[in-house]
Formats: sequence, C-alpha cells, structure tokens
Amino acid sequence: MKLASLRSGRDGALILVSRDLRSALRVDHIAPTLQSALDDWPRIEPTLQALYGPLNRGELIGAFAFDASACDSPLPRAYQWADGSAYVNHVELVRRARGAELPESFWHDPLMYQGGSDRFLAPTDDIVADPDWGIDFEAEVAVITGDVDRGVNSEQALSQLRLLMLVNDVSLRNLIPGELAKGFGFYQSKPASAFSPVAVTPDELGDSWRDGKLHRPLLSHLNGRLFGKPEAGEDMTFDFGQLVAHAARTRRLEAGTIIGSGTVSNKQGTAHGSSIADGGRGYSCIAELRMIETIRDGKPSTGFMRDGDRIRIEMLDAQSRSIFGAIDQRVRSVNRPT
Amino acid sequence: MKLASLRSGRDGALILVSRDLRSALRVDHIAPTLQSALDDWPRIEPTLQALYGPLNRGELIGAFAFDASACDSPLPRAYQWADGSAYVNHVELVRRARGAELPESFWHDPLMYQGGSDRFLAPTDDIVADPDWGIDFEAEVAVITGDVDRGVNSEQALSQLRLLMLVNDVSLRNLIPGELAKGFGFYQSKPASAFSPVAVTPDELGDSWRDGKLHRPLLSHLNGRLFGKPEAGEDMTFDFGQLVAHAARTRRLEAGTIIGSGTVSNKQGTAHGSSIADGGRGYSCIAELRMIETIRDGKPSTGFMRDGDRIRIEMLDAQSRSIFGAIDQRVRSVNRPT
Repeated sequence: MKLASLRSGRDGALILVSRDLRSALRVDHIAPTLQSALDDWPRIEPTLQALYGPLNRGELIGAFAFDASACDSPLPRAYQWADGSAYVNHVELVRRARGAELPESFWHDPLMYQGGSDRFLAPTDDIVADPDWGIDFEAEVAVITGDVDRGVNSEQALSQLRLLMLVNDVSLRNLIPGELAKGFGFYQSKPASAFSPVAVTPDELGDSWRDGKLHRPLLSHLNGRLFGKPEAGEDMTFDFGQLVAHAARTRRLEAGTIIGSGTVSNKQGTAHGSSIADGGRGYSCIAELRMIETIRDGKPSTGFMRDGDRIRIEMLDAQSRSIFGAIDQRVRSVNRPT
Repeated sequence: MKLASLRSGRDGALILVSRDLRSALRVDHIAPTLQSALDDWPRIEPTLQALYGPLNRGELIGAFAFDASACDSPLPRAYQWADGSAYVNHVELVRRARGAELPESFWHDPLMYQGGSDRFLAPTDDIVADPDWGIDFEAEVAVITGDVDRGVNSEQALSQLRLLMLVNDVSLRNLIPGELAKGFGFYQSKPASAFSPVAVTPDELGDSWRDGKLHRPLLSHLNGRLFGKPEAGEDMTFDFGQLVAHAARTRRLEAGTIIGSGTVSNKQGTAHGSSIADGGRGYSCIAELRMIETIRDGKPSTGFMRDGDRIRIEMLDAQSRSIFGAIDQRVRSVNRPT
C-alpha cells in the first residue's frame, strides 16, 4: 500500500496512491492525516488496504491523477525523527578527510542523532539556506514505526515498522564542525529534511525488502546528471531492526517515529568506492565526493550546492518504476527574494 | 492564563486552570488539545482568556477541583523539544569534573541539543530506568513558542513565546560520556523528560518575567529534603529570546516548539556555588553536587537516584503559591515489576 499527504494545513490530507503512482484517492474521511492513521494503525490499515486493490485496478469513483508536486512530506511534521549512520563507509570517509580515526566501536554500536521534526520540507520545496553554510544533500532510506516498547530486540523492532520512505537529510557542511565541536550534536547544521512524496508498506517492496534492508539502488541526480546509484542493501552495517532497537534502548518510541538509515554509501570493492565519473556507483552526498577528491588530490574540487542547484532523489523497482516518487528540490539562497 | 492537559489518549484534553491551581474547566470544545490551541493561538487565546477571569472568581458552572495527578504533560507529545544550556555554571562544573576546559565561546554561543519529544512523562509518572545507567534529574524552565521565522533576532523571538513550564530533563549520567564521545549528541542518555502539570502565559508572571528570564527560585526536593533553590533569573547567560533565536538561526520553528533553559545553576558569589547542606542555594541536579564533592574531596559521595527515590520540582510566587504545580516523580527500576 502507498500513502501520501496532500498539502493542506499543518498536517496534510491523507491520500491512498496507486502502485504505479498514476492515481490517488482521498481517504481523509477514514483518517484525516497520516499521523492519525499511525496512531490507530491496526484499526485503520485494513480499511485502507481494502481500497488499495480497487484503486490499482482503476475501479474507484473519486480517484484523481496523482501529482507529487501537490504533496507535502508524508508526515509534514512528526513527533520524532532520529537518523542513524548505518553505512559506516560514509562515516569513515567523512572522518578520514578531517584526519580522524574511525573508532572500532562504530562497527557494532550505531551512531544516531536526534533531528528536528517540527516541520519537514515538502518533496518539491526549495531548500532555502545560505550557500556560505555549505549546502549538501544526503540521500537515505527511512522507516516509520508504530509504538515500540523500551528494550525491544531487533526482531521485535522489525515487526513494528509501518512504512518506508526516502529522505534528503539536508546538511550545512560548513556549520557541522563548529556544532559537533560543542559536543551536543548537529542542531543548527541540520535544517529541515525532505521526504519522498510517497510512503509505502514493507509488503509493497516484495523481495527487495529482506533482512531489515531495502535492496535497491538509491539514485541521486545533481543538476540532471547521475551523481550516485549505491545499493541501499549493501554495506548497511546495521539493519532497520537494529537501528530501531538502538533508538528504543532507554525509552519507548511513539507511533509515527521516523528512523533514518544515514547516507547510503557503498565500498564497491575498493577502499571507499568511486564516483560516477570514474565508472563507479558514485555517492549520496557531495561531501563524500569531496573526500575522495581530497584523498586523491589533496583538496576537493567539487563545490557544495549553490543558488538554483537541483537535487533529485529516487528509487526504482526491478521494472524501472518509481517506488516512492521523487524528492526533487532546488536550492534558493536566503539572499534571493522569493 | 494557566493551561493543562488531562490524561486522555495520546494528546490529552485541554483544561483551563485557575490561578490558585484549585479549580479547572474543560475547554476541549474550544481546542481539543494544547497543540491545537497553539496551532491557532491568535484565534483561540482570546476565547480562553475570556473564561479565565470567571474561572478565577468561581463563577463557572462545570468547573471542578484541579488534580495534578490527573494531568499529562501540557504537551504529552510535541513536534520539537530542544534544550539549551543557558546557565554556564552548570556546564563549567560538569566539564571541570571530567577535566575538560570550558571554551571561551560558550559564553556567547549557546549550547543546545535536540531532545526526543514523541512521548513525555506525565508530571507524576514514574521514571522507569536502570539505576546502573546513573539516573539524575535536571530542574529547568522551558518556553513553548508559536511559529518563529528563520533568522529572527532575540526581541522578535521573545514576542513569539506563548507559555512557560518547568521541566525535569531526566538524564542517564553513566550513558552520557559514551554517547557524547560518539559525537552525535545525547540520544540514549536522555530518555523522556517530564514537564510541570501547568503551563502559564508570560503575563501571568508579573514582574518575575522580565528581560526574557523568569526571576524566581527553582525548588528541587530529593526524597523530601530541599536539594536546590537557585534563582532562575541569575547567571542565565542567554535569555529565552536568545535561545529561541539561536534555535531559529537556520530554520523556521513550528508552533508548539519547546525550548529549555538548561539546568538552573547559580555561582552564588563563589567559584561554583555551594550545597544546601553547606548553607548555599544548592543545585538542580545530583551531578553538580557530585562535582563539588569531587573538586573538594577528590571523589563524589552522593549517589545517583535509586529505585523508589523521589524528586519534586516546583516554583513558588512571591506569596509562596505554586505557579506551575509540581513535577513529583519516583524512580522505578526497570528490574522491578509494575
């Protein structure tokens, strides 16, 4: 089943979206918002599922053409957004470029930061920021959970996953060192993230969803050119069951909690992977390419995002059909009038 | 005006509370929840204010005896909870005990971490945790904001404050060093916080609310004995306007955002203040007392909280009347059955 939220007020209006992303049906009479559906999922989900087959078969009066640009993030605001760093290659690269060693513990104890969730960007909203802050995208996969008890193990955690999405975890690279040096996390350096227009139930993903990982390439296009196509199912040191269990170690998680995978990154059989230009799978953020450039040339040659730059993040199924719709955003400098 | 949320479902039911905390009135027909009131504050607030005078005068049919134990946190779950460290004495003490210098920048650039907000503890809920994690309280003041634009200055931020509350920012001291060493913030070491039963509008505080600070002692009683009574208006290096503006530097804040002051701590004209036992104003967390003991004796003598320990946090007005009601919690070990 695929769900989305039409732009409407602070929380959007829940719609059911057909598998091929061509048609949609308002279901806000069943649950007004995605959060309200998640709050009462065991009761709401069967009613939504009952409409999904007929919607896919084009049998429903009231269905309309799906338009991703009319969508807010599936949860326009959420009660929790916590982002792991499951692809340790990404962490190793980022640290290596600043001359820091990767502690051995990072291979068995996940990194996770608490992100801001009071307002997400819609999937086609501009990223409004100051280019001097070093604007970068981070392409990731995320799950939305139901209620998760404190102290669950990873199998129990997996059973509480409701939906999957893609994320652009917008990062302000030039603010990160100062924030992390203060020791309290990323606060100012991680402004609002954007999510894919559509969130999907795990059963929708077939064989691509196994062992708590999503086994499909994650495609990032920067200004229309392929920038990365790493396999999200490879080099993921911690699966989503482990990430959710990590989050729930000392506290209960409320329904609607979003847990991210961290930037998807493959080693590609090399030290740290290689770029699309060099024939590799590329990367899911500019920072990693700059690290490779720094390791190779002593300094980075690719700049961060500038006013007007465009990032498109998408995942296709085995038949090349978009699973989640695309995150497709442009940078707008804070200094440029609306 | 004073507001609270009766325990009811995931978001509570909004009630108006009389100034003396003796009576209350359900107002969930005006706004079902505090979040919904905050979402539409300019429209809802005058209607609530119109009932507040009559409630205080005992004129309203339907008013009932206020009972803090029937209350959830004013926002039982919130879209954002970010906690500053405005009392640099606290930061200096905590760092000194682990042999770390206080960077000079901490005096003009606030520390702030993103906290979990998907589920808060009710003001009288047990703190369920493993005593081996080093359970501590942190008594603080917090504000709830309306919508705050990105890049506001501190005066503009102050004009967007809607409500004030007290907080117990529960901390797991033995997990903090490991989490901070990973560089991504406190995640596992900051489980759910608890807030005072009542949230109050700034106008309710009279002369005690000035310059973006709340000028009253914050009282903490541990197991029935006074543990701290520092002045919340003293040694607050960053006022709430500055804290909110700091939070909004790179992003808009959505209505219902909670921003905390950090642990209230006074220097008391000495190097780092002194305890109640030594005739001082004491502290708002056990960690600070342990630091003083470590500085004086080479090691701490006071332990963290154990199964059955009780913490009560409250603030009184100039006539010794409780302003926010009390946070009054007991520790229950995860190992003890309910």
